[in-house]
Amino acid sequence: MSAASTNPLISDRDVEFLLYEVFGVEELCKLDAFSEHSRETFDLLLQSARRLARDILFPVYKAMDEDSPVLREGAVSVHPQLRTIYPRIVELGLINAARPEEVGGQSLPLCVAGMANAYLMAANLSAYAYIGLTSGAAHLIEAFGSDSLKRAFMTRMYSGEWSGTMALTEPQAGSSISDIQCAATPTDADHYLIKGAKIFISGGEHDLCENIVHLLLARIDGAPAGIRGVSLFAVPKKRLHEGQLADNDVHAAGLIHKIGWRGLPSLVMSYGESEDCHGWLIGEPNQGISYMFQMMNEARLMVGLHGVATASAAYHEALVYARTRLQGRPIGNKNPHDPQIPIIEHADVRRMLLRQKAIVEGGLALLGASALYADLADHAASEDERHQAQLLVDVLTPIAKSFPAERGFESNTLALQIHGGYGYSSEYLPEAWLRDQKLNSIHEGTTGIQSYDLLGRRIMADGGGALRALENAVNQTIERARAVDVPPQWRDDLSGALATIVRLTRELGKRGLSGDVEGMMLHSVDYLDLMSTFAVGWQWLAQAAAACEERKDDPNFYRGKLCAAQYWFATEMPRIELLVDLCRSAEDSYARMQPDWF
Amino acid sequence: MSAASTNPLISDRDVEFLLYEVFGVEELCKLDAFSEHSRETFDLLLQSARRLARDILFPVYKAMDEDSPVLREGAVSVHPQLRTIYPRIVELGLINAARPEEVGGQSLPLCVAGMANAYLMAANLSAYAYIGLTSGAAHLIEAFGSDSLKRAFMTRMYSGEWSGTMALTEPQAGSSISDIQCAATPTDADHYLIKGAKIFISGGEHDLCENIVHLLLARIDGAPAGIRGVSLFAVPKKRLHEGQLADNDVHAAGLIHKIGWRGLPSLVMSYGESEDCHGWLIGEPNQGISYMFQMMNEARLMVGLHGVATASAAYHEALVYARTRLQGRPIGNKNPHDPQIPIIEHADVRRMLLRQKAIVEGGLALLGASALYADLADHAASEDERHQAQLLVDVLTPIAKSFPAERGFESNTLALQIHGGYGYSSEYLPEAWLRDQKLNSIHEGTTGIQSYDLLGRRIMADGGGALRALENAVNQTIERARAVDVPPQWRDDLSGALATIVRLTRELGKRGLSGDVEGMMLHSVDYLDLMSTFAVGWQWLAQAAAACEERKDDPNFYRGKLCAAQYWFATEMPRIELLVDLCRSAEDSYARMQPDWF
Repeated sequence: MSAASTNPLISDRDVEFLLYEVFGVEELCKLDAFSEHSRETFDLLLQSARRLARDILFPVYKAMDEDSPVLREGAVSVHPQLRTIYPRIVELGLINAARPEEVGGQSLPLCVAGMANAYLMAANLSAYAYIGLTSGAAHLIEAFGSDSLKRAFMTRMYSGEWSGTMALTEPQAGSSISDIQCAATPTDADHYLIKGAKIFISGGEHDLCENIVHLLLARIDGAPAGIRGVSLFAVPKKRLHEGQLADNDVHAAGLIHKIGWRGLPSLVMSYGESEDCHGWLIGEPNQGISYMFQMMNEARLMVGLHGVATASAAYHEALVYARTRLQGRPIGNKNPHDPQIPIIEHADVRRMLLRQKAIVEGGLALLGASALYADLADHAASEDERHQAQLLVDVLTPIAKSFPAERGFESNTLALQIHGGYGYSSEYLPEAWLRDQKLNSIHEGTTGIQSYDLLGRRIMADGGGALRALENAVNQTIERARAVDVPPQWRDDLSGALATIVRLTRELGKRGLSGDVEGMMLHSVDYLDLMSTFAVGWQWLAQAAAACEERKDDPNFYRGKLCAAQYWFATEMPRIELLVDLCRSAEDSYARMQPDWF
Repeated sequence: MSAASTNPLISDRDVEFLLYEVFGVEELCKLDAFSEHSRETFDLLLQSARRLARDILFPVYKAMDEDSPVLREGAVSVHPQLRTIYPRIVELGLINAARPEEVGGQSLPLCVAGMANAYLMAANLSAYAYIGLTSGAAHLIEAFGSDSLKRAFMTRMYSGEWSGTMALTEPQAGSSISDIQCAATPTDADHYLIKGAKIFISGGEHDLCENIVHLLLARIDGAPAGIRGVSLFAVPKKRLHEGQLADNDVHAAGLIHKIGWRGLPSLVMSYGESEDCHGWLIGEPNQGISYMFQMMNEARLMVGLHGVATASAAYHEALVYARTRLQGRPIGNKNPHDPQIPIIEHADVRRMLLRQKAIVEGGLALLGASALYADLADHAASEDERHQAQLLVDVLTPIAKSFPAERGFESNTLALQIHGGYGYSSEYLPEAWLRDQKLNSIHEGTTGIQSYDLLGRRIMADGGGALRALENAVNQTIERARAVDVPPQWRDDLSGALATIVRLTRELGKRGLSGDVEGMMLHSVDYLDLMSTFAVGWQWLAQAAAACEERKDDPNFYRGKLCAAQYWFATEMPRIELLVDLCRSAEDSYARMQPDWF
C-alpha cells in the first residue's frame, strides 16, 4: 500500500489497525450476541466489501455523478449502470448485516459492519445510499412496527427487494420538526389516509426496485400541536391490493438539483393528491418523534461515516497524485538542471497530506469507537456496561456526525488544492467529493442543531453521568498510553483538556439551570468544535498507544501514525483553550448584533 | 440597505465608509497624479459600476454559469448574453481607468477603481475577467514594451477592441516557472518564432473580439536554463499581414472543464504547430521573470479582490435569505402555536453572518488599504513616502491575495450552510459562488507559494525596512484608535500581536541566515495565516476607530462595525499566539513524515 498507484479509497492497513490493534474487536466475540463470529468472519466481510467497492462501485462513480437522474412525467429513472451494480450491493448483505438472525441478519458488530459500509460509501456514496436508507427505514419498522407491518414491509426491505426512505422535512418547516403539517386521517380499515408534501426526500422516487417504503412523519387529525402530536407512518409507493401492487397516490412533484450525491435523486414528494394515499401507523399515535430519536444515533453515525469515507477517498487520491506529480525542487535548490521532484517532497504538500490523514484516520477512529460503544450498549454483558456505553454513544453521536462534515470538508478542500489547477477541473475527482461532502453538515440535523443537541441535552444527561462516562473512557486511554512510550506530553495535554472540559461543562450547566439558557447555549458551536477536537485527540492518543505497543513489524505504518498524532496534539489541541474561553466568557458579539446592524 | 430584499452584492454604505471615513481618499486628490479628481468623480464612477453590476451583469450570471462555452473545431464561442453586456463593461472604462491620460486612462486612484471593479466581480466574475485579464496584459506592454508594441497592441487592448491574456503555465512545469520549455527562435525580422504548449490559459481563445494578445513566457534559443533564461513575448492570435489580420498559428488544443468561473473558458493552447507563430519580445531578453514580478502585485491584488467580491455576493445573499426565511422559535420557546421567526433571530445564524461580515468587510478593507498604498507607492509626494508605501504593498500583497481565497472560501461555505437544504441545490446561488471562490487559492500562485513569498522574501526585504514599515503603519492606526473610545483592549491586543510578530519574524530571519532555511520556512503557511489574521485585525481596528469618530448619524451601521470588530478581536486574534508557537518551535510532524509513512 505504501506506494500504491491506484486509489485504495480507504487504507486496509488502517482498518485492520483500528479494529484489531486499537479496539480489539475480537473481544466482542466473547459476548453472546457475537459468539458466532471471529476475526475470520469479520475479515471475510471486509474483503468482500473492498472488492465490491474497488472493482464494481468506484468505476461507476464518475458516470453516475455526471449523469444525474431526471424527473419525467412523475418518474425517475436511475443511472443504467446502477441497475447492474445494485444487485451486487444487495448480495453483500449489508442492509441487515448488523441485525440479528431472526430478521435475516448476520449479527455482525456495528463497528465491523460500519467499516465494510465505509468502503462502499467511499467508492460511490449515491449507490451505497440506496441500501443505507433502506437499512435505516427497515430498522425503524423492526424496532417499533407490529408483526404484520414487519411482514408487509421490513422483510422485503431487508432483502433489498424494496427500498426505503425517510420522509420528515417539509418546505415550511425545514429543521423545525414541530411545525410538520402532513395530515393522517383515520379510516375504518387498518390504514390512515395521508395528505401533505415533503421535501428533500432522498430516493423518494426511482425505478430501481418495484416499491419504495416512505417512513413518514404526519399528524393524526386532532393531534396536539408541536412535536408531541407527530406520528410515524409507513407509506409505500405501491400498496397491496387484491394480491397485486397498486398505485398508492404517492407522487414525485419535483426534483432537487443537488450539487453532490448526484446518483441519488432528492425529491419533492406529494402524498394523497387524490385522497387515496394509505399509510400504516408505526407503534403508538403521537410517538413519532420518540421513535425517530431512538433511531437518530444510527442515522447520524451513518452520516458521520459518509463524511469520513468521502474525505478518505479524496485523501488517498491526493496521496497518489502527490507521489507521482513532479514539480519544483527542494527548498534552496535553484539548479534548473536538477530533475523535478514529486510534490510530496515539499513540506507544505506533506503538511496538507498529514492534516488530511489526521482528520480522516482520526475521524474513522471516532466513528469506529462510537459504533463499538453502540455494540456494547446493546450487547455488553452487564446492565451497567450497557448503560455506560449508551451514554457514550449519546455524547459521541453529534460529534461523530459533525466532525467529519466540517473538518472533512476542509480535508476534501486540501485534496483539491494539492491537485493545483487540475483540482479545479471536473476531469479530476477531488471536486466531486468536495461537493458530496458538503451535504453532511446539512442533512440529519445541521451542525448548529448537533451543537444544541450535544450541549443542551446529551452532555448534561443522566445527572452528570454522561460526562462521567466520557471521563472514565478517556482516562482508560490515558492509562493505556502510560503503559507504553507514548510521549507523556500528549497524555498530559489530553488530561488537561479533559479537566478543562469537565469544569466548563459544569459551569455551562449551572448557567442554564440558573435560567440563562441563552448564555449557556450561545457558543454551542464552539463547544461542539472543542469537543470534536478533544474527542479526535482522544482517538489519536489511543492510536498512538496501539502504535507503540505494536510497532515492531511494520515500522513505517506506526511512524506515520505517531506523526499524525503529534500533528494533532501540536496543532489542534491548543485550540481547545481558546474555544473554552469563548464559551466561558459568553463572548457577546453576535448576541448583541441586531438584524438591522448588518 | 438595512432590510434589502434583493442582493446588493457589495454594501454601498461599506464602500463609502472605507473610502471616505476610514481611508480618507479625498486626500489623494491633493497629489499631482490625482489633482483632476474629487469625491464627485469618484462617486460618479462608483455609481456607474453599481448600476452596471446590478442591472446588467448580475442578471446574466446564472445563465453564464450554467451554459459554459465549449471548444468546437478549435474555436470557443462565448455565451450569447456576454456579447450584449461586454460593450457595456468596456464602455465603463475600467480597463485603464487607473492608467494615466497619455495612454487613454483616467488617472483614477487604484483604491477607487478597485472598489468599482469589485462590484463587477461580485456581479459576474467571468464577465469581468475578460477586461481584468486585458487590463493586466496591456499594462505589461505599457510598462515594458517598445513604442511600436504599444501602438500595435496596447492601444487596442486598453480600448477593449482586443483582449489579452497571460500565458505562463505549462503542463510539465505547473507552479515551477523555471521549468518553462516554450521556445522562441529569433528571425531576421523583428519577431521570434514561438513554439510550445501552455495550459490553464483563461480567455486564451474566444470569439468576443477579433484578436487576443497572449503575454507569453518562453526561452530564446540558447538562453540559460532556469528562470534567468525566460523572456516575455506578445503573441497575438492574429497578426497584421499586409494590412489584414491573418492567422498567427495559435491554437486552442483543449478546454479545461472548470468547476467555476464558467463563463470564462480556460484552455490548453498550442503555439507554432505549423512553425508560423510570431511573437514579439517585450523589453530585454531573459528578463521575463523580472517583468512578471514587477506586475505581480497588481495581478495578485486583483485575485484578492475576486475573493472578497465572491464572498461578499454570497454573504449578502445569505443575509437576505436569513431575514426572510421563517423557521423555528426563540431558544426555550417550545410553543408550537407561536409563529415561526426569521432565522436571523437564531444566535447561531447570526454567528455565521457576523463571521462572514468580519471576513468580507475586513477583507475589503485590506484590499482597499493595499490599493491605497499602491497609489502612494506610485504617486506620493516624497520619495520616502513612496518607498515606505511600496514596502507595505509588497508585504500586504501575499496576505491580501490569500486571505480572501482561504477565509473567503469559508465565508462562502457559511452562506451555503445558512441556506440549509436549499443551499445544496444549484437552483440557489451560494453553491456557484463557492465553486468560483475555490480557484483563488490556486491561480496566480497557490496559498503555499504566497506563504513562501511573504516569509522568504517580502517581510525580510529592505534589511528589516519592510517589517518597520508595517510596524509604523499599524502604530498609526493604534494611535488613531486611542484618540476615540475604541475599547482599549483591542488596541492592546493588536499592539501585543505586533510585538510578537516582529520578534518572531526576526527570529525566523536569523534562523534562515544561519543556514536553516527549512526550519525557517517550515511553517510558512501558518506564518501567512497569523499575518493575515493580524492584518485583518489591524483593518478592523481602523474601522472601529472610524466608526467611533463618526457614529452619530447612522448608529446602526457603526454598531454593526463595532460588533464585527469585537468578533474579530475575541475570536480570531487569539489564534495568532498558537500559530506563533508553531512557527517558533518549528513543530516537526510533517517535516519528519516520510512519503512512505502515509
